[in-house]
This record gives sequence, structure tokens and C-alpha cells, in this order.
Amino acid sequence: MTAYNAPIADMRFVFEHVAGLREVAALPGLDHASPDVVDAVLEEAGRLAANVLAPLNRTGDVEGAVLENGVVRTARGFKEAYRQFAEGGWMGLVFPEAYGGQNLPWLVNAAVSEMWNAANLSFQLCPLLTQGAIEAILHHGTDEQREIYATRLVSGAWSGAMCLTEPQAGSDVGAVRTRAVRDGDRYRLFGTKIFITYGEHDLTENIVHLVLARLDGAPAGTKGLSLFIVPKYLPNPDGSLGARNDMRCVSIEHKLGINASPTCVMSYGDEEGAVGFLLGQENEGMRCMFTMMNNARLAVGNEGLGLAERAYQEALAYAQQRVQGRHQGRPAAIIAYPDVRRMLFTMRARIAAMRALCYWTAGFVDRSYRAPDATARSLAADRVALLTPMVKAWCTDLAQEIASTAVQVHGGMGFIEETGVAQYYRDAKILSIYEGTNGIQALDLAGRKLSLAGGELPWRLLEELGTELPSLPAELVPALRPALEAVERATRHLQASSDEDRAAGATPYLHLFSATLGGFLLARGAAAAATTDAAGKDWPVLARFYVQHLLPPALALEQAVVAGVGTLDPDILAA
Amino acid sequence: MTAYNAPIADMRFVFEHVAGLREVAALPGLDHASPDVVDAVLEEAGRLAANVLAPLNRTGDVEGAVLENGVVRTARGFKEAYRQFAEGGWMGLVFPEAYGGQNLPWLVNAAVSEMWNAANLSFQLCPLLTQGAIEAILHHGTDEQREIYATRLVSGAWSGAMCLTEPQAGSDVGAVRTRAVRDGDRYRLFGTKIFITYGEHDLTENIVHLVLARLDGAPAGTKGLSLFIVPKYLPNPDGSLGARNDMRCVSIEHKLGINASPTCVMSYGDEEGAVGFLLGQENEGMRCMFTMMNNARLAVGNEGLGLAERAYQEALAYAQQRVQGRHQGRPAAIIAYPDVRRMLFTMRARIAAMRALCYWTAGFVDRSYRAPDATARSLAADRVALLTPMVKAWCTDLAQEIASTAVQVHGGMGFIEETGVAQYYRDAKILSIYEGTNGIQALDLAGRKLSLAGGELPWRLLEELGTELPSLPAELVPALRPALEAVERATRHLQASSDEDRAAGATPYLHLFSATLGGFLLARGAAAAATTDAAGKDWPVLARFYVQHLLPPALALEQAVVAGVGTLDPDILAA
Repeated sequence: MTAYNAPIADMRFVFEHVAGLREVAALPGLDHASPDVVDAVLEEAGRLAANVLAPLNRTGDVEGAVLENGVVRTARGFKEAYRQFAEGGWMGLVFPEAYGGQNLPWLVNAAVSEMWNAANLSFQLCPLLTQGAIEAILHHGTDEQREIYATRLVSGAWSGAMCLTEPQAGSDVGAVRTRAVRDGDRYRLFGTKIFITYGEHDLTENIVHLVLARLDGAPAGTKGLSLFIVPKYLPNPDGSLGARNDMRCVSIEHKLGINASPTCVMSYGDEEGAVGFLLGQENEGMRCMFTMMNNARLAVGNEGLGLAERAYQEALAYAQQRVQGRHQGRPAAIIAYPDVRRMLFTMRARIAAMRALCYWTAGFVDRSYRAPDATARSLAADRVALLTPMVKAWCTDLAQEIASTAVQVHGGMGFIEETGVAQYYRDAKILSIYEGTNGIQALDLAGRKLSLAGGELPWRLLEELGTELPSLPAELVPALRPALEAVERATRHLQASSDEDRAAGATPYLHLFSATLGGFLLARGAAAAATTDAAGKDWPVLARFYVQHLLPPALALEQAVVAGVGTLDPDILAA
Repeated sequence: MTAYNAPIADMRFVFEHVAGLREVAALPGLDHASPDVVDAVLEEAGRLAANVLAPLNRTGDVEGAVLENGVVRTARGFKEAYRQFAEGGWMGLVFPEAYGGQNLPWLVNAAVSEMWNAANLSFQLCPLLTQGAIEAILHHGTDEQREIYATRLVSGAWSGAMCLTEPQAGSDVGAVRTRAVRDGDRYRLFGTKIFITYGEHDLTENIVHLVLARLDGAPAGTKGLSLFIVPKYLPNPDGSLGARNDMRCVSIEHKLGINASPTCVMSYGDEEGAVGFLLGQENEGMRCMFTMMNNARLAVGNEGLGLAERAYQEALAYAQQRVQGRHQGRPAAIIAYPDVRRMLFTMRARIAAMRALCYWTAGFVDRSYRAPDATARSLAADRVALLTPMVKAWCTDLAQEIASTAVQVHGGMGFIEETGVAQYYRDAKILSIYEGTNGIQALDLAGRKLSLAGGELPWRLLEELGTELPSLPAELVPALRPALEAVERATRHLQASSDEDRAAGATPYLHLFSATLGGFLLARGAAAAATTDAAGKDWPVLARFYVQHLLPPALALEQAVVAGVGTLDPDILAA
């Protein structure tokens, strides 16, 4: 295994030339995010990722998390790494100073998170879920809840967990059965949740579960769900730890990957009922949960990016070192062979496009919170809504492909677990599943997101791309214009289609749209590279490779988008 | 996990309407392969696969093979399963009756092997390598070698292993360093081989290694390699076991998948030298080895097919059982959702195309051995040569995609190892690597196979496809004609290209060509289905789905085929 090196020059280039860090840093309240500060943050995060988190990735995979007598023990080194992570203030990067945070842009967080994801995906899930919990509590909590919980989550003293899934309620969240019963000013919860990431562990003194449950008598489906803060230890008014709550980890899963991350079956209320505190209003739990989920979906797309970058670095290093055969008369490292370079270029061009898309989207998250003008905030929020399913599904599907290619570059050695690269292939497979499967993302895009605001969301974006087209490198325009037109036709088609036809075309549509966006963002970088220093010199080459090798197959998905549900006759499968 | 059901109706349909079993059974020496006999063989193999091998797949994965004191112990149940396999005469299915075989067509073997591959990939590797050893010995051995070894390999009393790879000699076989020294009428071998599948195990009393080694003073590279029979126990003239040979298993690998299959590091000649018997002529080892390797490459493509079918069966069963949410007002199994059906259709259509390609190619293997006319034999051998890299690489790349989709259909449950489907995703990854990486296959196709016989091999096939086109269903022709033209243009381009440009376009070319072939073979089945009973009724639907959803992205690879090595600037990667 090679060391991880945070690709800071690439990150800076995307900040400046694709995602618009300058404009983001000019938003109210972000004036401290100067280039110097951002640089220092990236350098510092890069060191922590490379020196502390990355070396624990493989050992964590081998040891896994272990459940003994109801207590989950994380792999060796995780506790100390977590301590350094929390002390460095990384948990609070984007959160208000009032709660101990650093109030930096989500755009900067996108790069920093990419480093955690690349260094140690299993570790990073704990901060990720904690950040989600902080967001939900800051947005929907009472002053007291913010004071007690947000402060301690931001410092990293406590961690968060997100508790939706039950055996019968996966993609169908509305089927949740966990019960909540009023008990004075609090609630008692009874039920079982599965797939609870870091639901139990030994990294923090307390764990704050946000649990989706149904009040007795509440409506069926998602409209009857409420969200509760259910802490492992009930805090005293001063925030010190009080009684142990009636909740426990029943088992942890034996998984294909992310083995160092405990995936818990949690039981609430085996005795008198787990004490919960309502977050937001009764029966509005889904709205509160969506605050976490949208954040988490972007974060999972970013996990795909980080994992892909790490897998690429491994593959590149191996291809540079592994001598095999002779090329043009000399013993050659395998990177000399065009087919190996084709694999590496495919990985690298895709990663550049994924990074551009992730960061560009993160910039709109900042605008949606901070733009001075309400219309601008609303437009930015709409943009985030449109892009979120693409960031999540496209980046994670590609991450899996890239992880597989990284194994492939290693040949037989890649299949041996000691080599380390197989772990990325195993880890990658969860990304297309959790936080809403990629199929659910595609339905969200082709269904809800194409309908919002009278169907305007995609058209605003497509119009902007059309406006940008003349400023992009002339050699790329003949590839990008038909791509844009294909997305336009596909969008028009789906907006006029029945629900069933739209569902049938949703996944190819998501890929067609995302790949086109990726091409435009690469071209934007390529255009900027012409006017800048060495940092962006590879962008024109990667953009050219992308439009010749990778974009055409994605555009050809248009036929699948419009094929319709009639091509999916259920009787054929029943046979 | 669901039970495995051999898809015998699908297999028969391909035999009859795509691969031409009737013509194959009419070849000299195959007249006993009547429809009744073939049906009985399929039924019997299906029972063994379903009842004996399939139930050991997951337990074998969990237990793995274990090395203790130089002895490899296979997982529980493997020994008994192997006994039943050997007693059933399955090892000798295609081999001459003179050696105890059943002398059935390779075409029938393709279906039977698919069952073993689907039922238990790790188990099946032992018979696969044994069949390869039998082929090499029958083709290149002396009468005595055939009598001693082939007979016992065909009966299953002994097994075979294929020993090429060394740490420095993977794709570059010519870098083999294992030494062979003449010692009277035999040889002494010294060296280490890695990645030796079933190099050591407890299923048979003897293990026959075919070892590639270099005689002292032989030329460098592949031209100085000789092939040796190196048995674990030296046979006495009557075939009974004599002295233990100087060879041992040093370690076995901890792998991503195929855990029940021991992957051995073998050391030869730690003491007086491992005794080896020359197979074929000195310095002609590569020619002998290629007899095994071509067979093995087709067999690995077939592994992709079998694994894909098994993964599909799991996914289909889960999609039919898993109730989640409401569709059109009612609680629904997830198969009701178009996006889930799209995944299942993608798997099923691809599998039908893969099966058609594998079996069709196997039919040419029979013709290459048995056609009465030498020209016909030679043309068939050329066809096998052209198709082999496509069968190997295309079917295994698709198998991995299909295994991933099968996990995806399972959602979160798919990521839990107990569910069983994750094993297919892990197992699948070896298929694109061993027996020549898929990159090597693509280079073989775009390089050697496009050059053989004055470049005629692809053109003979493309002309046949053009001739067949008018007989295919009219609705498919508008998709297939441009596909054929794209392959023609790409072939012409690569044949006129430099080595480097050809290497740069090799992988997309292989996919473009294979996907087009797959489309034609599906269309052939669809055409036949119009005139037959219920067995083929899904072919027209699958073919239509294939040309709308799956073929267009493959055709769009044409741009990548012709992009050339200029799009793969090494300096960009070095940065």
C-alpha cells in the first residue's frame, strides 16, 4: 500500500476555477475564509488524513469493530485518531462559532471531507453522522437542545447517529413502526432499528441518536413520523452525563466492507422505554430528517470521490513501480502500456469531473444559506436540490467502477487482500446503497426534482450551460453541444411522461445528465487552465480524453431514457 | 440465499436455435450426442449442481481452504462432493472413451460447466484445471504419459494444476525463472510459482502439476520455456503411487473471493530437485501451455456466465419476495418498480447474450476438432481464436457488473455477508484478472487476432453477420445494421493503425465487437422464437430491450476505439 497524499493542488484549482470559492468567500459571514486561511486548513487536514487516518484504514478493515457484552470496541488506533480529530476542531468546521465551530464554507468542507473519505472511510462515518445530527439540531432544535447537544457534538465530545431503518422499513421510510409515547415533557420509545452506523462505539462518552418513530395514534406513512433526540446517557441540565438510557446495541453486522465502522442493530425500550426528546414538531419528523439526509447524500457522493481518489493513487503507484515485459525494446513499468494508461486516464478524468461536481454543488449549499438576497438563496437551494441526487448516485457508481479498475491495474496482486486495494472495491459497494439507493436517487431526480417549481429546475441549469458553451475550449464544443441537446431532449421527454415511464428512464437519465455536467465542468477547468499556471495544465488533456472516451457512451443512454416501461414487461421476469 | 436452478430450458433453446447443436452432433464421432442423451446429461448435471455443489458455496466461502503443516484442507463437504462429481464421470465429459471419457461435444460441456460455475465457482476450479491438464497431455504427451496420467485425470482419481506465474512473471510469461536440469530421461526443477489454483489440496490422492520452466542454457523469453509434468507423487509404471516429489505448498493466499479454492505458493526443488517429465518438446512449452490456456480462457468466460446467472437468480428471488412501499396503491414486492425491473432486465438480457456467445463459440471448438474437412476445421479454429478473447473478457466484465447489480437489488441486505449475494461480487473480480487479464485479452484481439490470416478473421465473421441480417426480426435490424457498420469501421481503423494506437483502442474495441455479437445472437434467438414453442418466448423481448438499453452505449465506444494513443499522454499521469 502506498501513502495517501491529499491532492491539494487539484482541490485548489477546482475551488478557484470551477466552484467559485472567491464568490463563496464573499458571502456574508464568510469573509474570514481568505485564501490563506483556506490553504492552511487544507494543508493541516491533509497532514491529519495522511499521517493519522490513512495508516489505520487497512488495520481497521482487518480488525473490524467488535461487540462484547453490549459494548462496541473500535479497531486499534481509532480512539487516539478520534481524539486528534476532535481536538483539531474538525467536527465543527462549518458550524457557527457560537457553538464552538469555525464557520467555514461548505465548499471548503467538501475538500476536507474528501480527505477523510480517502484516508479512512470507516472512520469518517462517525464525524459524518455527527455533522448530520448537528445540522438537524441547529435547524430544528430548541435553544436548550442547541446549547446542550450542538455544543458537545461540535466539540466532538459526543457523537451522533441517524436512526431510520427497520427490517420492514428501508427505502420505504413510512413503514417505520418504532413507537413513541408521551411521558410528561418527554417521550418513551420502543422499537428496533437496523443498519445504525456508529450507533454504539467507544470513541465518545455519549452518543446522540436521532430516532424516527411514530406517536401512538399518529397517521400512517411518513406523515405520522416524529424525530426524537435519544441520547445514550441522559444529560443533566449542565450537560454532564446522567442516567444510562434504555437502549442497547443488540448485534453488529458482518459486512462486505467498511468493516471498521460498526453497523448496529439497536433496541430501544426493552425495559421502561428509551427516553426521547422531540426535535421539531410532532409528525414533522420527515422534514427534520431530510435536513440530515440531504446533507448526508451530498456527503456520500463525496465519499465516492474520496474513495476513488485513494484507489487511483494506489493504482498509479503500482503502475509506476510494477515492471512487466518490454515496451519498445526495454523493460517497462506497466504504465508504459497504452491499455494501462487508458485505465488510469479513465479513473483520473472521472475523478476530476466528480470533484468538480461535488465542490461546485457545495458552493451552492453556501449560497443557499448565506446569499444576501432571498431569491438568490432560493435559487441556490433549488440548484442543490437538483444536483444532490446526481452527486450521490453518479459519484458512487463511478467510485465502484474506479475501485474495480484499481484492482484490475494490480492484476493478480489486486485480488490478494494484503495488497490493500481490494478493500476499496469492497468498501465502495455500500455507497450506491445507503442514504437512499442510487435507484431512489434517480427517481428523486426524474420525479420530484423535474417537477419542482413548475419543472423549471433543470431548465435554469441547462440554459446556464448553453450560455457558458461559447466560452469553453473550441475543440470541446462539438462534443458538449450535442450532450446538452441530449439532456434537453431527455428532460423534455421525461417531464411529459407518465410516472411509470419516467421511473423506467430515471437511472439512465441521471447518468446522461451527470456525465454531461461532468464534461462541462471539466471544460470550464480546461478553459481556465489556458490562463493559469501549472496547476491546471492537465485539465485540457483530461477534458479531451473525457469527451472522446467517456462522454459518448453516456450520451447513448438517451435511448434507454426514452424506452419507457413498455420495454420492462413483468411477465418475462416472472417466467 | 435461494436454491440454484439450472436454467435448462434456456440452455436447450441456445443449443438448438443459436449454437447449432444439431450440426455439432452430426460431426463424426459425436453421433451418440442425441437430443435424448443431451437432455439426460443436462438434467443429471443440474441435479448435482443444485443439490450437492450449490449448498457448499457459501459454507466454502466462510470456511475457506486451510494450510496446516504443508497440507491444504478444503472446506467441509468438498471431499464428498468431489467424490460424487468424479464418480458421475463429469471430469471426462468431453474426453475420448479410450481414456474413460464420455466423448460428448464441447458445446454440451459449455452448459454443464455453466452449472458448476453457477453452483460453486471455487469447487469447479479443480475440475477446470484438471480438464486443462488432460487436454495438454492428450495433445502433447507420449503414449505412456497419456496412459498413466490422462486416464487417472479423466477418472478424477488425480487432479491437475497449471503452473505459470512467478512473482516477476505475470502477464509477461517469458520472464519465468524456474530452472529445469536434465537428469537422465527426466528433469529436476527448482523454483517458486505463485497463484497456483488447487496446487495442493485433499480432494485427490495425486496432483499433476504442469510447470513452465527454463532449461539451463535455453533462450531468454518465451522461446526458452519448456513444459513439465511434475506430479506430487511419482507414479510407478503401473500407475500406483511411488515416492513423494520434492515440491510443497509454502503458503496459501488470503483473497477477496473464491475463498474455498486454495491459491498456493508452490516451491519446487528445495532439496534434490522436483522430478519433472518433459511434455512435448524442449523449448516448446508455450505451445503446449497455450493448449491449456485457450481452453481455460473460454472456461473463464463461462465462469462469468455461470456466476452471473446465479447472482441473477438471487436478485430475482429477492425482488419477488421483498415487499417495500406501495405501487399503484398496493403494498408491492420491489419487482413492481420499473427501476428494479430495469436492473433485472439488464442482467437477464446480458446473460442471454453471454450464454449465446459462450455456447456458439463452444460449437466452433467441436467443429475445429471434428469437421470432416480440413478447411472447415481450420476455419472453425480461426473462429475460436477470434472469439476467445471476447468470450473471456466481455463475459467476465459483465459478470462483475451483474454481480454488483445483484447486490444493489438487495439494498442494505446485500452488503451483509450472511445474505450471500456479496460473495458473487467478491468472487467475480478474479475473472477479469486470471488466465490473462482482460486488458491482455483485448490486446490479443486487437493485435494478434486482427492480424492472423492476412487480417481475414474478423471480416469473415462480419460478412456472415451481414448475410444473416435480413433473416433477423425487422424491428431489430435498424439497431443491428449500424452496430455492424461500427464494428466494420473500427476493425478497418485498427488494422491500419500503429501498434500503440491499436493498444489504446483495444479494450473499447473488444466491448464494441462483443456487444454487437451479443445483439446478433439475441436477434437470432428472437427470430427462432417466432417459430417455436414457449421456451423462447422471452427472446424477442430481451432482444428488444438489449438493442434499446444496452447496445447504444457499447456502439458509442467507437470514438474511444479510434481516439488513439495521443489521448493518453504519459506526462499527465506522471504529474
